[in-house]
Amino acid sequence: MAAVGLTFVWRLLRSGPRPGLCGAGGREPGAAPRRAIGHGRVAVELDSSAGVAVMKMENLPVNSLSLDFLTEFLISLEKLENDRGCRGVILTSGAPKIFSAGLDIMEMYGKSAEHYAEFWKAVQEMWLRLYQSNMVTIAAINGSSPAGGCLMAMSCDYRIMAENPKYSIGLNETQLGIVAPFWFKDTLVNTIGNRATERSLELGLLYSPPEAHKIGLVDQLVPEEKIQSTAAAVMSQWLAIPDHARQITKSMMRKPTVDRLLAHRESDIQNFVSFITKDSIQKSLQMYMEMLKQRRG
Amino acid sequence: MAAVGLTFVWRLLRSGPRPGLCGAGGREPGAAPRRAIGHGRVAVELDSSAGVAVMKMENLPVNSLSLDFLTEFLISLEKLENDRGCRGVILTSGAPKIFSAGLDIMEMYGKSAEHYAEFWKAVQEMWLRLYQSNMVTIAAINGSSPAGGCLMAMSCDYRIMAENPKYSIGLNETQLGIVAPFWFKDTLVNTIGNRATERSLELGLLYSPPEAHKIGLVDQLVPEEKIQSTAAAVMSQWLAIPDHARQITKSMMRKPTVDRLLAHRESDIQNFVSFITKDSIQKSLQMYMEMLKQRRG
Amino acid sequence: MAAVGLTFVWRLLRSGPRPGLCGAGGREPGAAPRRAIGHGRVAVELDSSAGVAVMKMENLPVNSLSLDFLTEFLISLEKLENDRGCRGVILTSGAPKIFSAGLDIMEMYGKSAEHYAEFWKAVQEMWLRLYQSNMVTIAAINGSSPAGGCLMAMSCDYRIMAENPKYSIGLNETQLGIVAPFWFKDTLVNTIGNRATERSLELGLLYSPPEAHKIGLVDQLVPEEKIQSTAAAVMSQWLAIPDHARQITKSMMRKPTVDRLLAHRESDIQNFVSFITKDSIQKSLQMYMEMLKQRRG
Repeated sequence: MAAVGLTFVWRLLRSGPRPGLCGAGGREPGAAPRRAIGHGRVAVELDSSAGVAVMKMENLPVNSLSLDFLTEFLISLEKLENDRGCRGVILTSGAPKIFSAGLDIMEMYGKSAEHYAEFWKAVQEMWLRLYQSNMVTIAAINGSSPAGGCLMAMSCDYRIMAENPKYSIGLNETQLGIVAPFWFKDTLVNTIGNRATERSLELGLLYSPPEAHKIGLVDQLVPEEKIQSTAAAVMSQWLAIPDHARQITKSMMRKPTVDRLLAHRESDIQNFVSFITKDSIQKSLQMYMEMLKQRRG
Repeated sequence: MAAVGLTFVWRLLRSGPRPGLCGAGGREPGAAPRRAIGHGRVAVELDSSAGVAVMKMENLPVNSLSLDFLTEFLISLEKLENDRGCRGVILTSGAPKIFSAGLDIMEMYGKSAEHYAEFWKAVQEMWLRLYQSNMVTIAAINGSSPAGGCLMAMSCDYRIMAENPKYSIGLNETQLGIVAPFWFKDTLVNTIGNRATERSLELGLLYSPPEAHKIGLVDQLVPEEKIQSTAAAVMSQWLAIPDHARQITKSMMRKPTVDRLLAHRESDIQNFVSFITKDSIQKSLQMYMEMLKQRRG
Repeated sequence: MAAVGLTFVWRLLRSGPRPGLCGAGGREPGAAPRRAIGHGRVAVELDSSAGVAVMKMENLPVNSLSLDFLTEFLISLEKLENDRGCRGVILTSGAPKIFSAGLDIMEMYGKSAEHYAEFWKAVQEMWLRLYQSNMVTIAAINGSSPAGGCLMAMSCDYRIMAENPKYSIGLNETQLGIVAPFWFKDTLVNTIGNRATERSLELGLLYSPPEAHKIGLVDQLVPEEKIQSTAAAVMSQWLAIPDHARQITKSMMRKPTVDRLLAHRESDIQNFVSFITKDSIQKSLQMYMEMLKQRRG
């Protein structure tokens, strides 16, 4: 899964203006957390007067979804969820050029089955919490968003994307020889419909902002410098709706999809563990990381 | 639910050219039923040579769905359904500027639990009969159509809307703090798909005719003066198809959605009754009606 | 069902430049099979270097789906499926102006119940094999494609249609008083969504290439002379994806639909047999064929 993120990262690093970045999925060494709360991987700013928080992912360089990041993300989200003063969350990225590169490959290589299971459970939990949040959730997609990053964006109530032609979004798992889990697929079907999902998943398509907008994968495109102000403006429209009615309606729409994962949560974990512990998969992950090291070295 | 209609009605009355209208959901006092059959809330004209009936809703001022209206509507529809000479029905409005304002608030305030249950059963029955009609059903939407009015239109086989920018259509329940029942939601999903429904219901969106056409909530827009002739022309296209094959096909498409309500019909009634009998809801309905009286007084 | 094909065929024959064609659904008498393998109804050319086969339907004049044709089609497909050197199939027509006219009426008239059951099982099998093929399947729709022909095209992974205004595609069964089976319907819903399917099936619509493209029934339009080269180019894009990941993804998308038929396969056959053996249906098929003979005579 993380391979997805990594391929992506690698292309980004090669072409990008930021040499010398360290481990994929890790933090930039020595980079001090900005206004961030917690361990600095998720910076939360709550505007109490508006009742709106901005959650800025800052797991540099590419916001890969490591176990530590997911844990911090879940704690931050839970805090806001329980804060009566917070009715809406804008999810965005503090990393340049990328929203999130998806699952962290480092969590999938050379670890124990117990670790893999714990990691996968955290990925599930991220989706379950975000997709069902009682708050209004708006994704301000200010960078590329492959694989697990796309899942995060799709789990929000509304998606605004910067119309930068260098950015792309999509579930590109098959391009790397892996398969998106059924609940990634369900979320995509709920967003863009069955036929577009079929083609999108079988080809592992990454869409440019205009393409993503055309098929409904994102709801709105804006110039990059306007993404945060647009997100705030859209948020206020959503907050004009009484919370209780909106929450019940959201649950009515999303619960059947959530229930499918809940009914198969353990087998989904087992599937992941037995896939990732295969010799062939571990080997290809190893080669992958060595290639990455050499390219960067 | 009816609150939806009422808010709408109130806006209509304030801005409209027709002062002095009486009780929301009732009939204009002293207004004689036009060519109408029955009690004059539904005027039916059957063109036997074409095999097509026009059902004109005339529950003035805003065709709100009162128990009396629904009962008369159901009797009229049943008669046509059993009339071998009638193969198609055009559903339209005899009220100015409005197709139907949705459920009647008067049926939901200060009545007994038995009354609420009877009312809700009639609302269900209206949908069940219309959505599964053996006849070709075409909605000629010659006015605004919020909430229950939108449901009626969606239950037809085809929707033609007058392209008057003052008209709007949609399930706007959440805007008033209430939630569309699951079978309203199912009908909307069947019409415009999952993602558009999610956004539409969570925000309680009312769409202008071009917007409604763009998302597929209505099938065709025409200048207001051409709506009845267009409906007749479209009807003849539909009637060119052998009835039996069309009916089986329609049932194949719609039966799973109908079966979901039939399987939960009683609990759906109980849900409505326990919601509407809440003190908080009754109080807000009371305030609502007093506000309406003052505005009109 | 075949009536669909036949009506279509008849129109084609009347207007077309090819007089003297013999029995509907049969082969042109004396026509020698071209490079075809087997009995010449399906010509298969495998390009081993590309790993791509072209299956050209040559059941002249209109590629109607007779039992013999279906049997040969299934054998050819199975061979390719088991050939490790073949990863993709382009399905196209060797008949002028038509992709496939759908089910063969001759298989539905004056035969035994056993024959009808055997025939219907072959139709099911064609869909089951094609819809679930492990290979990449691309339909190069170089002619009209009503009813069963449309089903074949929809069962592929991707559809390219020649933008010839004389061609059309769709499930037009109701136009002839018959009903598309539920799995035809399911396949159409999977392709164009619920509302478009509802309208399409109830009216038995045949779409022009631009209309078919607009609703998503075909994925791409090209000038007629470029259809084979475009299919080959698109195929190479699909083959860039690792087979295993694509196959599992395809199965995840399509298995629930396939399982619905598998769960009701026998009753679906019984439905067909009891429908087709009705006196009224047999009589109308007889009249139909006599009319066809006279027109051609």
